[in-house]
Amino acid sequence: MLKAKNGPSWMVRYVSHSSKHRVPRLAINSELPKDLTTIPTHELFVKSGFFSHPRPGLVNWMPVGLNVLRKVEQVIRDRMVEVGGEEVNLSSLSSASLWEKTGRWNNTELFKLRDSSGDPYCLAATCEEEITNLVSQQLKSYKDLPQLYFQINKKYRDEKRPRSGLLRGREFIMKDAYSFDIDETRAMETYDKLVGAYYRIFEDLKVPFVKADADTGDIGGSLSHEWHYLHSSAGEDTLFTCDECGNSSNLEKTLSYSEKLEDHLEVEVEYFLTKDTSTLICAYYPRGRTLETNLLKLHIPDIDLNLNSSVIKQEELFKEFKDEELMMSKKVIRVMDARLNQTSNLPDFPVPFINRSFITTMFDTPIVAATEGEICGVCEDGKLSVHKSIEVGHTFFLGDKYTKPLNLTVEVPPPADATSKKMIKQNVVMGCYGIGVSRIIAAMGEILKDSQGFRWPKSIAPWTMTVVEARGFESIENADSCVYNVLDKLETELEGFNYKVDERSGVGLGKKIKESNMLGIPLSLIVGKKFPLVEIEVRGKRFTKEPVWRKLYQEKKEEFQWEVNEEKHIVHIDAVGEVVKTLLEDM
Amino acid sequence: MLKAKNGPSWMVRYVSHSSKHRVPRLAINSELPKDLTTIPTHELFVKSGFFSHPRPGLVNWMPVGLNVLRKVEQVIRDRMVEVGGEEVNLSSLSSASLWEKTGRWNNTELFKLRDSSGDPYCLAATCEEEITNLVSQQLKSYKDLPQLYFQINKKYRDEKRPRSGLLRGREFIMKDAYSFDIDETRAMETYDKLVGAYYRIFEDLKVPFVKADADTGDIGGSLSHEWHYLHSSAGEDTLFTCDECGNSSNLEKTLSYSEKLEDHLEVEVEYFLTKDTSTLICAYYPRGRTLETNLLKLHIPDIDLNLNSSVIKQEELFKEFKDEELMMSKKVIRVMDARLNQTSNLPDFPVPFINRSFITTMFDTPIVAATEGEICGVCEDGKLSVHKSIEVGHTFFLGDKYTKPLNLTVEVPPPADATSKKMIKQNVVMGCYGIGVSRIIAAMGEILKDSQGFRWPKSIAPWTMTVVEARGFESIENADSCVYNVLDKLETELEGFNYKVDERSGVGLGKKIKESNMLGIPLSLIVGKKFPLVEIEVRGKRFTKEPVWRKLYQEKKEEFQWEVNEEKHIVHIDAVGEVVKTLLEDM
Repeated sequence: MLKAKNGPSWMVRYVSHSSKHRVPRLAINSELPKDLTTIPTHELFVKSGFFSHPRPGLVNWMPVGLNVLRKVEQVIRDRMVEVGGEEVNLSSLSSASLWEKTGRWNNTELFKLRDSSGDPYCLAATCEEEITNLVSQQLKSYKDLPQLYFQINKKYRDEKRPRSGLLRGREFIMKDAYSFDIDETRAMETYDKLVGAYYRIFEDLKVPFVKADADTGDIGGSLSHEWHYLHSSAGEDTLFTCDECGNSSNLEKTLSYSEKLEDHLEVEVEYFLTKDTSTLICAYYPRGRTLETNLLKLHIPDIDLNLNSSVIKQEELFKEFKDEELMMSKKVIRVMDARLNQTSNLPDFPVPFINRSFITTMFDTPIVAATEGEICGVCEDGKLSVHKSIEVGHTFFLGDKYTKPLNLTVEVPPPADATSKKMIKQNVVMGCYGIGVSRIIAAMGEILKDSQGFRWPKSIAPWTMTVVEARGFESIENADSCVYNVLDKLETELEGFNYKVDERSGVGLGKKIKESNMLGIPLSLIVGKKFPLVEIEVRGKRFTKEPVWRKLYQEKKEEFQWEVNEEKHIVHIDAVGEVVKTLLEDM
Repeated sequence: MLKAKNGPSWMVRYVSHSSKHRVPRLAINSELPKDLTTIPTHELFVKSGFFSHPRPGLVNWMPVGLNVLRKVEQVIRDRMVEVGGEEVNLSSLSSASLWEKTGRWNNTELFKLRDSSGDPYCLAATCEEEITNLVSQQLKSYKDLPQLYFQINKKYRDEKRPRSGLLRGREFIMKDAYSFDIDETRAMETYDKLVGAYYRIFEDLKVPFVKADADTGDIGGSLSHEWHYLHSSAGEDTLFTCDECGNSSNLEKTLSYSEKLEDHLEVEVEYFLTKDTSTLICAYYPRGRTLETNLLKLHIPDIDLNLNSSVIKQEELFKEFKDEELMMSKKVIRVMDARLNQTSNLPDFPVPFINRSFITTMFDTPIVAATEGEICGVCEDGKLSVHKSIEVGHTFFLGDKYTKPLNLTVEVPPPADATSKKMIKQNVVMGCYGIGVSRIIAAMGEILKDSQGFRWPKSIAPWTMTVVEARGFESIENADSCVYNVLDKLETELEGFNYKVDERSGVGLGKKIKESNMLGIPLSLIVGKKFPLVEIEVRGKRFTKEPVWRKLYQEKKEEFQWEVNEEKHIVHIDAVGEVVKTLLEDM
């Protein structure tokens, strides 16, 4: 195919490329500073044309940003399908009646509206209600379980103080998945399978991540993990990580011990009742520390955190414990934070308690918020360090939290040894699994940015290579003889690669490369300077430890006329496809 | 690769396929009648699991339907990119302030809501306002024009009487595109280019379509076309088509003449004023026919259709025409429908008009709604026939309808012969181009349905082939010697095809084929009955006149052991890839 192997560049015919491979229109602000780390990431996103914000918290995705979005979506989709997930796309308008059943309609962050007949709806913020309702309409037999659905679409949250950028928006792209299983054991197997899918998704995305024990919060359920990127400045969350066992957890979930116990500590106390008001809980902890009620709840699941002496006056809270008759049926649990010992100065017991045998004391129980440098409560060995982080995913084991109020049940056969052959009706067991797709883009933009702009791994870059024409590489449109059609050749060499050609006239080579680097495109290909040799510039970071391309280079450097000069590779145009392929393995 | 060329089927190892190629969970109602044409199409969609409706007009897309949706989107996307369209995805929440500027905020079909700070928004029903605003923020020079953006996403309309199905929903998928040009000439070139793209899109979708002259309605502008599928029962619109010149138009735009004029017709009259109230328009038309005011406006563009004697009392409307002084500055235009002649019984002129020279009469002007069998007003030769149709697209030449109120201007150089060198500020000229993506699915489902269910062209079928295993084709998971791995072989043969394997246990071969046919999958592949021969069943309709597969059949029937029995093809498994490829060319 190569007719003019070493022919002069002016013999080359350069024709316009199909629009599929043309760089999108760039709305780049030319006023950008030289060092792009000096402007906030969310501004750089807007100024380099990834998206814009018609109002704070709302997003118009522009061509470059939409490319990245679709790539991240595809990475997630592939891994979800791999574990048997089936993709759906639920209505964005969700009926109030379902949310009232689950007690979530009062959420003030829901965007609410009424249709012309007055019926109330919210814009979907999450879809536990809708998907549970959908499955309950279609589920006929326990044999139809397990089921796993996911969707990737816009979600809405009426954030009171929306910020610019994608991190705290009112409209965001979320992958949400929902699993339905016959019992807790299978549901936990599904949960583990999804955790595996999450590992693979975040590994595909190349940026180091942390899986942390987490509180279940408003979504509910009994077990949950958060998935975080660590980032010292953009991080909004706080994570504790153990340097020994590697366990991560967020503040509400971190169990910790002091490195060494102090004697004669001054002690604070806070009182709680259990939900049935039968038991008084006295939580003792060192003065100056913060009681973490989630940890208290770990030890005493039926505690009512609202029946609390910091909210309700003691006289009111303890009333029944001072009545001699009622007192006989009451109990007391004293919980001693792990930092206290027998020398600690405990306050007086607030109620007269005749029968001391109804008092239980739990020693050595971590119930205060951890601080940096304390001992990990999981391995009881390593030290805890604190990290700022960006939450990008959350997985929940929901149990029957939604299937119960929405009445999603299934009839299952009785155990083999049961006397009755009657089918047993039980609630389906759920899990739910979120990933903030637009948050991932914001977080990765933040983490991988350098002075030249963004740096994306190839899996999510808007495209993988920008092709530009060197100055002086003129087109000879009407030359009939010779000629070598460069783009035909490139089309063949680059088939299957997601490349774009920057054909803009009136924009210099240097500016084109600079903009390609700013957008985070892994490679730039410069055609024409030394034709038929071409130059490939590698943008920034490799995501592998050892450069993969060296192997091919050792084998083929003569044949490909391949020269390497730091981040520049010069090769014969006939070898471009092979060289690009190996270079991308590092990206 | 084929080790056991004619080995018995029990020597075959049949392993589970990757989840990517597994048929999605089907929520099929087993109560379906034998002849599926007996149930309404929108019910068949729901019962066969394409989507469901959580409330009338809202849609939950299920896996099978989502597959079709993505395919239609891709057909449209490819053709839009081909003409230089750049894909964006705008916010679904649009600020009231923009809609107030263009005078469209009063639209009662907008879903409106307020955020927590009280600011009013609507859910995007169409995006002329937002995109014009976006472009005005980014446009720096006339050199940045033309621009063409498109998006494919959910739109919302608070339809008062939502019906089931996708035809008249409150939430629908729309492709909307917007073009921005420097002047009317270029804008019209862009409009023509987009009309070309629409032709290619609808040709790719295989179903015959009609492009009709249309009224611009609420969107506005000066020229528009509607794109329709003809359908006698599901059609909601009425189109007139000329059997001679082929011109199509909707009722409001159809110019027509009577085949022969009748004498002594009784005449109705309706009166209008022009916007400046200087001119009285008397529209005369035969009793029993319907005056079509859009046609009247064609001839008298500055007519005010609201200043109308059927709305306002005559005495009020004509008041100034009866005042001797004011009357002197007034004019009268009499418009005679083309069906009238000098023998027609015109009513008396309602006002005293002294100066007859201020009365103009337009004869032979078609101003009533056409009826079937009348003569086409375009070619004045052919006869008009009436068709019921489903509108699936609409293209508008907008001019400055949005760029003027939203102040999208650009400075252009003066003409070469101008005395001043000063740049001239002018409004950018717009076009907009919609396609109802979910409507297309509803319409094509309706049009292509038969007694077995849906029939899709391969371009938009949920997948192109269902692979099923014949009964008795048992797996021998642990056979170490021989054996022939069928799915490995199929994976190789079918690489690049969008096929699914139906591995459901407990469901018979016949039911699997029946369901595949109901879902409209073009081909079914049955493995195992006569292994290594396999059977390919062709589902229903071909979209080509002459079967393309015959050519390959003539050449290779011996080699492929290819037998044809009506819609069934039996071939050796080694030839499956080639045979499937040629069969699909007809689908």
